[in-house]
Amino acid sequence: MADFQDFNLSCPLPIQQYPHVLLAHGGGGKLMHQLIETVFVPAFSNSLLGVRHDGASFAVGDARLAFTTDSYVVRPLFFPGGDIGSLAINGTVNDLAMCGARPLYLSAGFILEEGLPMETLWRVVQSMRQAADAAGVQLVTGDTKVVDKGKGDGIFINTAGLGIIEHSLAINPNSVQPGDAILLSGDLGRHGVAIMAEREGLEFESRIESDCAQLSGIVQAMLDSGIAIHCLRDLTRGGLTSALVEIAESANRQIQIEETRIPVREDVRGACEILGLDPMYLANEGRFIAFLPPAQAEQALAVMNAHSTDTGAALIGTVTDIARPLVMLKSRIGAMRIVDMFSGEQLPRIC
Amino acid sequence: MADFQDFNLSCPLPIQQYPHVLLAHGGGGKLMHQLIETVFVPAFSNSLLGVRHDGASFAVGDARLAFTTDSYVVRPLFFPGGDIGSLAINGTVNDLAMCGARPLYLSAGFILEEGLPMETLWRVVQSMRQAADAAGVQLVTGDTKVVDKGKGDGIFINTAGLGIIEHSLAINPNSVQPGDAILLSGDLGRHGVAIMAEREGLEFESRIESDCAQLSGIVQAMLDSGIAIHCLRDLTRGGLTSALVEIAESANRQIQIEETRIPVREDVRGACEILGLDPMYLANEGRFIAFLPPAQAEQALAVMNAHSTDTGAALIGTVTDIARPLVMLKSRIGAMRIVDMFSGEQLPRIC
Repeated sequence: MADFQDFNLSCPLPIQQYPHVLLAHGGGGKLMHQLIETVFVPAFSNSLLGVRHDGASFAVGDARLAFTTDSYVVRPLFFPGGDIGSLAINGTVNDLAMCGARPLYLSAGFILEEGLPMETLWRVVQSMRQAADAAGVQLVTGDTKVVDKGKGDGIFINTAGLGIIEHSLAINPNSVQPGDAILLSGDLGRHGVAIMAEREGLEFESRIESDCAQLSGIVQAMLDSGIAIHCLRDLTRGGLTSALVEIAESANRQIQIEETRIPVREDVRGACEILGLDPMYLANEGRFIAFLPPAQAEQALAVMNAHSTDTGAALIGTVTDIARPLVMLKSRIGAMRIVDMFSGEQLPRIC
Repeated sequence: MADFQDFNLSCPLPIQQYPHVLLAHGGGGKLMHQLIETVFVPAFSNSLLGVRHDGASFAVGDARLAFTTDSYVVRPLFFPGGDIGSLAINGTVNDLAMCGARPLYLSAGFILEEGLPMETLWRVVQSMRQAADAAGVQLVTGDTKVVDKGKGDGIFINTAGLGIIEHSLAINPNSVQPGDAILLSGDLGRHGVAIMAEREGLEFESRIESDCAQLSGIVQAMLDSGIAIHCLRDLTRGGLTSALVEIAESANRQIQIEETRIPVREDVRGACEILGLDPMYLANEGRFIAFLPPAQAEQALAVMNAHSTDTGAALIGTVTDIARPLVMLKSRIGAMRIVDMFSGEQLPRIC
């Protein structure tokens, strides 16, 4: 165990500026990145962790594997279009898909609060089973802990996932190239708005459901079609903006996107205006961006749209040859501006 | 998502007897087993989950892998001999070792409570790094969530682990044979007493430290020595008794053990008498039992003692040829009695 007195000497400066954990440290924005870079990466530094992707990939025997984990603390547990159970399966399946891996096996760790209605647990578990079946994965090992009433919040779920990489591509931010087309798999903002509406008891003219879905099928279809994918990233905490900024930083390339090309449903846009939210920063649970050679963009869009159940995929931008880690947005009126991560997250506990 | 109204029709009877989750559902005793058998196993039924071992094992490519997960919610976070960080690494490393696997990679999912001192997180993370180094595993992927103040309890950690099985033995309860020797790797009860003393502010004449330790080295040494291990089980929640009862049930064999052969330190025994605890049921975090051919018992004990840092391993009993899932204890005064699992756990949140 590290010596207590060492803290002030060893703990890096940015953490000393925030002596306590804030909700924003879990928000997918700047504070979370600062926490990861100053506490977790230095402590656990190794070549696999260094890639800073949605999961780690490595060889075991003759197989290339991907391994990832996420905890789910969404509030409320049930929301239009999903629940913590479907989210816990799809979220981890999607992280494997973003590594270009075919998901094989999941683990599940439950932290239950004393007094939770058994019926709630039963509903969540049934939902997990259905989502696992839909994604073609098996839940093979698990664990249950119970904490005292008032020391948890109903159900927290951790899932870890193991997948197999069956191609020779290196799908990660380091493979991004100048000229790459940036495709977005569908419309933005529905998960965030659905959660917010359920949490606050708001009703809109149309029912806005979460986009929560597994992305493994669509990624497999792209790979099967021979698309030479360079990088994939799902648009969860921090939304489209954080994903783009992270990749621009990892690849040290300026990225340029066009606001008018980014699909947002009219009802979602309206709800965002009322609620003071920006769909560019909202968490999605069934959307991703793909970086790939521009010559394959049209074919990739066709594959993505063939596997999408709702509003279509779109080409939203490109990677420039400027070696500067910036994301530039061409706005509706044609002006260019830099977009940056949020400090925290517009909505805490969205996943 | 399952229909709400289906609950009373579909949810199995034992769960309806307990309409809410109790602390005992996480205790490693009868209630937890009932929860697993009636909710989790039916929902996630598959051939790998069916083995009911410390983890799942399967082939990927030409490699045999083991995969396991545990969440850690121990209170207090720091205790004599360890902390939640070392526990989170050692516990999952040990579950892999109990599958006969060499641990390779771990994931870590943190659920932090808003307001947690950053220094506490830093200490826990340093402790995880040291434990990972000692066990020879790499922490390769992770996740951080933050929940509102009062909706968590400082830090919860989930770790999942991936290991490789480099031998042809089938180490699980189904391999247990009549006549098998049952070896215990060391003295019982220290983790439980250390936690209880820290929690209640008790002081004993001698300092009782948790036995928290990685068991991978000792298991590897047994395998390297050619011990044909049939089954391994670490003695965490529910202690020695739950482990024996679970294996007796899985193997459908009567097990016989002798109380006088079970090592318990005098200071631990004294503390247990004062606190009203039974070392047979207390959680340990660095102890396991091994089932193996009686002809190899002496050799196995020598290997175990060569790798033990404290009081020695012992032969505590045998598997009989009676096809009845019972554990019989020969007490100090020579009487035979049936020992059964606790309903819950003597001490909640011990790991």
